[in-house]
Amino acid sequence: MKQTPSNSPLQTLFLDTGDVAAIVRLKGLEFCFKGLEAALRADFLRWNEFDKSARVARYGRQGVIELMPIADASTYSFKYVNGHPGNTRLGLPTVSACGVLAPMRTGVPELLSELTLTTALRTAATSAMAARFLARPDSRVMALIGNGAQSEFQALAFRHLLGVRELRLYDVDPAATAKLQRNLAGSGLRLRACGSVREAVSGADIVTTITAYNGHAQVLLADMLEPGMHVNAVGGDSPGKTELEPAALRRGPVFVEFEPQTRAEGELQQLSPEFPVTELWTVLAGLQPGRADARQITLFDSVGFALEDYSALRFMRDLARELGVGRPVRLVPDMGDPKDLYSCLAMPASVQPVEAPLEELLE
Amino acid sequence: MKQTPSNSPLQTLFLDTGDVAAIVRLKGLEFCFKGLEAALRADFLRWNEFDKSARVARYGRQGVIELMPIADASTYSFKYVNGHPGNTRLGLPTVSACGVLAPMRTGVPELLSELTLTTALRTAATSAMAARFLARPDSRVMALIGNGAQSEFQALAFRHLLGVRELRLYDVDPAATAKLQRNLAGSGLRLRACGSVREAVSGADIVTTITAYNGHAQVLLADMLEPGMHVNAVGGDSPGKTELEPAALRRGPVFVEFEPQTRAEGELQQLSPEFPVTELWTVLAGLQPGRADARQITLFDSVGFALEDYSALRFMRDLARELGVGRPVRLVPDMGDPKDLYSCLAMPASVQPVEAPLEELLE
Repeated sequence: MKQTPSNSPLQTLFLDTGDVAAIVRLKGLEFCFKGLEAALRADFLRWNEFDKSARVARYGRQGVIELMPIADASTYSFKYVNGHPGNTRLGLPTVSACGVLAPMRTGVPELLSELTLTTALRTAATSAMAARFLARPDSRVMALIGNGAQSEFQALAFRHLLGVRELRLYDVDPAATAKLQRNLAGSGLRLRACGSVREAVSGADIVTTITAYNGHAQVLLADMLEPGMHVNAVGGDSPGKTELEPAALRRGPVFVEFEPQTRAEGELQQLSPEFPVTELWTVLAGLQPGRADARQITLFDSVGFALEDYSALRFMRDLARELGVGRPVRLVPDMGDPKDLYSCLAMPASVQPVEAPLEELLE
Repeated sequence: MKQTPSNSPLQTLFLDTGDVAAIVRLKGLEFCFKGLEAALRADFLRWNEFDKSARVARYGRQGVIELMPIADASTYSFKYVNGHPGNTRLGLPTVSACGVLAPMRTGVPELLSELTLTTALRTAATSAMAARFLARPDSRVMALIGNGAQSEFQALAFRHLLGVRELRLYDVDPAATAKLQRNLAGSGLRLRACGSVREAVSGADIVTTITAYNGHAQVLLADMLEPGMHVNAVGGDSPGKTELEPAALRRGPVFVEFEPQTRAEGELQQLSPEFPVTELWTVLAGLQPGRADARQITLFDSVGFALEDYSALRFMRDLARELGVGRPVRLVPDMGDPKDLYSCLAMPASVQPVEAPLEELLE
């Protein structure tokens, strides 16, 4: 049973995690990854139209909470996202997120959505988009270091978008690897659990690191890298949280999303501010080369940038409208007179009707 | 019919504008204003426990969109809010807002709420809280310059919290004044529409300015101010948007919420950075004097600070739980294994059940 989504500017479309899961089920993961890559690429090619800034972070003892705003002349978006590596011990995910898409013209949110599942999808699509320009075109084998919440999404984005056929898996927690193997049985990917990072990386075409450890972990060492490899470094994404030995970053050109943010949050934080990097959008636009030859080592130091959420929110909004998924909610009252906010004290609640004459409140 | 709100850390309590209106109807406006003032005061007295920053704003041609984060060691909050003076011509409110309250320990939002109506309530409660220390205790007459969306809330907060009994009203739009008069008929407030700002201000104890004009408007002139007056300047709240003649600010001590933000956004933007001001919390804490005597002119240059939303979100969360208003939503999946985000692709949607075997997605 579909519900007709309202396009009233007074209503906001709300999507929870179940709604986003339903969109992915209805359209298929392959369709979603392809659509997300197309949306990301279209927006990255408009790079200079966006008002960009590094995210605003609050660091606590257990983790970080961040706000990630971005806007072009017509549309604003932001994401709220946390990163709490200890959450899994409480039965909670490491990352949860939500966000808003709003027209700059009115500022009234048109979409309020979960971004927990959406972030996993867009991060994987961004990694694959970068690898399309940075990995060898004949890449078929990927090492996947860190087999937690986002690992299946990385695996399937690389399978559907780049033709990866074999995964070499490693996690300090063997149960995480077993979970990934269960989830990806029947996916068409050959899966091999490995006993060490070095074993997983040896002979791989692409190395994806996506661990949750909060510290300078040096999961991937410089001497593990082989000619022709592409490193997709995803897990190091906040100050004090890195995965690569600094020397690994000197093995080949380093590509980033938004340089000022990656300098502070990415693997780059371990190197001097003068270390040269290339912003990914310049490669997509043909302004800078990506991979130079089949023996070069390339590195994508991914931290996650607000533009990726902007693209993902647009993509999910369009699919939700097409499919009739989600429900309208009210963040602003429906006032006959827009200066008469006071009258909205008479608005009905979303859950239960509450009847009391407005006049009773005033005395 | 009440719904039992869940306290599962995997569920987020969602309140839309109708829910907040229902809370106000059920508890009464006077109760809400008193409760908000108490919550605000308790949090302002913990000023140094908060990690504070000026809000992050994006300015477009038609208006501004802002993010307002704040946190103490245990709790984080942020507000998304826009200000678009031209919205009323589209039948939309000038201001709409939403926000989140989350424990710093896990980062998973416990409350996702509209803040359109809540902002009007907390802004008025903040104004009254300041006036309790800055206005003469025998203040009974308030001039209300600007009779738009927030004017009734200012009027009733000053009536319930400070004993104001008479309002002198002025707006460039007589229909706005008529709307306010209709809404406050029977409120116990004597209402007098005036033909000019000067007429409204003359003889008033308190002058509240809350206009929406986007520019340096000089609604209130220095020579209108009389000994003993308190000025509650609320409408000037972003760069380029002010209401007072700069000389009016030199007529008496100026009090602010968070100095770095008010220097950029408040009436203060018209003066040099050296102009002395007093942060309101220091007055609440007894560290600085408020009003010195009955003939002093005092000014509160209010722009709205993130801490006020933090207090309001806490207050609304507690009332919503008590009353069973609102509904749980999922921003994170309910995973048996918190590392198994992928399995949540099987989650049900909020609106319609969608059934498709997970395996179908993978090939």
